[in-house]
Amino acid sequence: MDEPKVQAFRPPVISLLTDFGTRDAFVGIMKGVILSINPAVALVDLSHDVPPQDITAGALLLRSAAGFFPPGTIHVAVVDPGVGSARRALLVETHTAFFVGPDNGLLSLAAPADTVVRIVHLTNAEYFLTARSHTFHGRDVFAPVAAHVSLGKAPEQFGPSLTAMERLTLPKVEYHAAGLTGSVIYIDHFGNVITNITAADLQPFPKESLLVSMDDMQIQGVVASYAAVEVGAPAVLINSWGMLEIAVRNGSAAQRFGVLPGHPVHLTLT
Amino acid sequence: MDEPKVQAFRPPVISLLTDFGTRDAFVGIMKGVILSINPAVALVDLSHDVPPQDITAGALLLRSAAGFFPPGTIHVAVVDPGVGSARRALLVETHTAFFVGPDNGLLSLAAPADTVVRIVHLTNAEYFLTARSHTFHGRDVFAPVAAHVSLGKAPEQFGPSLTAMERLTLPKVEYHAAGLTGSVIYIDHFGNVITNITAADLQPFPKESLLVSMDDMQIQGVVASYAAVEVGAPAVLINSWGMLEIAVRNGSAAQRFGVLPGHPVHLTLT
Amino acid sequence: MDEPKVQAFRPPVISLLTDFGTRDAFVGIMKGVILSINPAVALVDLSHDVPPQDITAGALLLRSAAGFFPPGTIHVAVVDPGVGSARRALLVETHTAFFVGPDNGLLSLAAPADTVVRIVHLTNAEYFLTARSHTFHGRDVFAPVAAHVSLGKAPEQFGPSLTAMERLTLPKVEYHAAGLTGSVIYIDHFGNVITNITAADLQPFPKESLLVSMDDMQIQGVVASYAAVEVGAPAVLINSWGMLEIAVRNGSAAQRFGVLPGHPVHLTLT
Repeated sequence: MDEPKVQAFRPPVISLLTDFGTRDAFVGIMKGVILSINPAVALVDLSHDVPPQDITAGALLLRSAAGFFPPGTIHVAVVDPGVGSARRALLVETHTAFFVGPDNGLLSLAAPADTVVRIVHLTNAEYFLTARSHTFHGRDVFAPVAAHVSLGKAPEQFGPSLTAMERLTLPKVEYHAAGLTGSVIYIDHFGNVITNITAADLQPFPKESLLVSMDDMQIQGVVASYAAVEVGAPAVLINSWGMLEIAVRNGSAAQRFGVLPGHPVHLTLT
Repeated sequence: MDEPKVQAFRPPVISLLTDFGTRDAFVGIMKGVILSINPAVALVDLSHDVPPQDITAGALLLRSAAGFFPPGTIHVAVVDPGVGSARRALLVETHTAFFVGPDNGLLSLAAPADTVVRIVHLTNAEYFLTARSHTFHGRDVFAPVAAHVSLGKAPEQFGPSLTAMERLTLPKVEYHAAGLTGSVIYIDHFGNVITNITAADLQPFPKESLLVSMDDMQIQGVVASYAAVEVGAPAVLINSWGMLEIAVRNGSAAQRFGVLPGHPVHLTLT
Repeated sequence: MDEPKVQAFRPPVISLLTDFGTRDAFVGIMKGVILSINPAVALVDLSHDVPPQDITAGALLLRSAAGFFPPGTIHVAVVDPGVGSARRALLVETHTAFFVGPDNGLLSLAAPADTVVRIVHLTNAEYFLTARSHTFHGRDVFAPVAAHVSLGKAPEQFGPSLTAMERLTLPKVEYHAAGLTGSVIYIDHFGNVITNITAADLQPFPKESLLVSMDDMQIQGVVASYAAVEVGAPAVLINSWGMLEIAVRNGSAAQRFGVLPGHPVHLTLT
């Protein structure tokens, strides 16, 4: 079979993350706006099923994904309960990427302060759609700005620079003599329960001697993969985000243990 | 970061709107057919979660989106309960776009009569897939025709011209001495309740003195955005479709008020 | 309207089929990895809502789609309950396509033995992501390998050849004097009930004289399309997969008849 040997053109990538769902054409409309300005972008959906108005879930997903995209990727994120209010619209440039979205913390986990080159307050209406609504800045502000960024327009042209943006603070892990206490931050599609405890938090401890407990559930040892336990059995592992996760092989841990984000998780050394 | 400065090529855009869902590969198959004929198109999903066989919902979504795409975009729409019957397959050319789909009203709201350049009855089997099914014209008729249109094939080549197509009639707004009565036409992903009352219908009235009622729910005044009311409070606004919408900030108005498309909505001047 | 007349470049196509859902950015991350290696591919989603860990459903969907893609398409499929275990990772080359995924039967229906040119065991870590997880080979192994294949890398470079791979066996149709007995293999988005009985199985029989029964449901005759029966009535037809399907026009046959995959379906000649 013939395979192309030469790359004619490296299209810029624009990723999209929203809580718009995929039923109503909102996301398709944003893509139409982008392609009307720059027909040669590669568009990638991160997720449009962020729980409505759940800024933290959106911020975690954006952080989980951004590092795997080509340098210069433009990530548009819209979970925006304050649309139409005084909340600011932002373009954030980091060492490796651009982020476009509302100033409500959504962009903050993917763009930690030490990676930020510039934060621009989007005020230059020249780059917005003309017939602007008060309810859909994804279409009217964020999509056209992202498209213009993908054409190489300099960030300064979109508005004045800011010294800071809204930042989310995730719950912190607490360290005790006997171990540590973290909490559930996200439940994924499979019902896997993801905590705020990182691989680095576990580094000091031998993996087999850790006891993970959540209410009256107790699991001994951290394993390498789901396949290390029997079908239907619970497993604790470091997941693809680099975080401690409680799973049930081929099942839903969230359902089995009845937990939601915010639920405490204890690690003790046995 | 390096950004491309030169556009090597402007790929034609094909959008897709169906009630096929995203579970069964039906949509992916249509894209495979399109890319087999024209590998250089940009494919955009509008929605594949139109409620099964709901032609009106599909037509409203198509209308809400088409105006935001580049000129010459080819919109393929398949909500097609009559597939395999005598219903005709159409290619509709307007001043700004092409529409491909069944002749059941689905294309009619996005292609009002005064924008239509040509309506073609798709009869030339040369542009269909060879092994044609009676149940999946999205794959066998509409996708290949759209791909051939994207290659610049003239509309006349696909079949004879028609003088008219099936047109949906949305419920009409009724004007009284005391105000007007419209109805719910769509519920979106957030549970926002969209009516057939337009911004133009409201033009004559001062926005603060309008009382919107639906059963025993009453809301005074039309606001600019969701953020104008408290979290959990209802709001009436003109939405991104340019239609009157009843929302609940960070909640679902459809659930709160228990309404479905067809439900009457009254506006009175107070 | 201007239409492009010249194809500057034929981008390779990579399709994606997973049970990852579309909520968690897992699929977007795979696309980021692919575009980081080859920015000029066309990415197509087949489905990401394969029921979790349902290898058979994934294999059926992949088979239903692969034939409609351009020659040389690379299909990445990840339904992978054994991720992190000793199950092998594969690149399968057939006469018309490439398949990348776990060696658990998922690729086997789309790549029947008589079409296979080469089966490669993916062992060359040079083509994997460096920071490899034990839970997300879609990101760390399958996506980067597919991207390198799309750049024209020879299959032999990814690892040693194998003589065979895991193959699924679907339930077989049984032939009696009075007719035949098959079974339900898939329920689609519309609730259509798809069986393992093929168009070829029906060839010997006159279509009107076939009686299809499933528990106490009985339908006489095989029709050409859904539109051949009244709205709400059941219909038996050959669907777009070329398989016998039991449908309810504008309704859900699966709900009406309460059946799941595995349920027996009888055909008798009347």
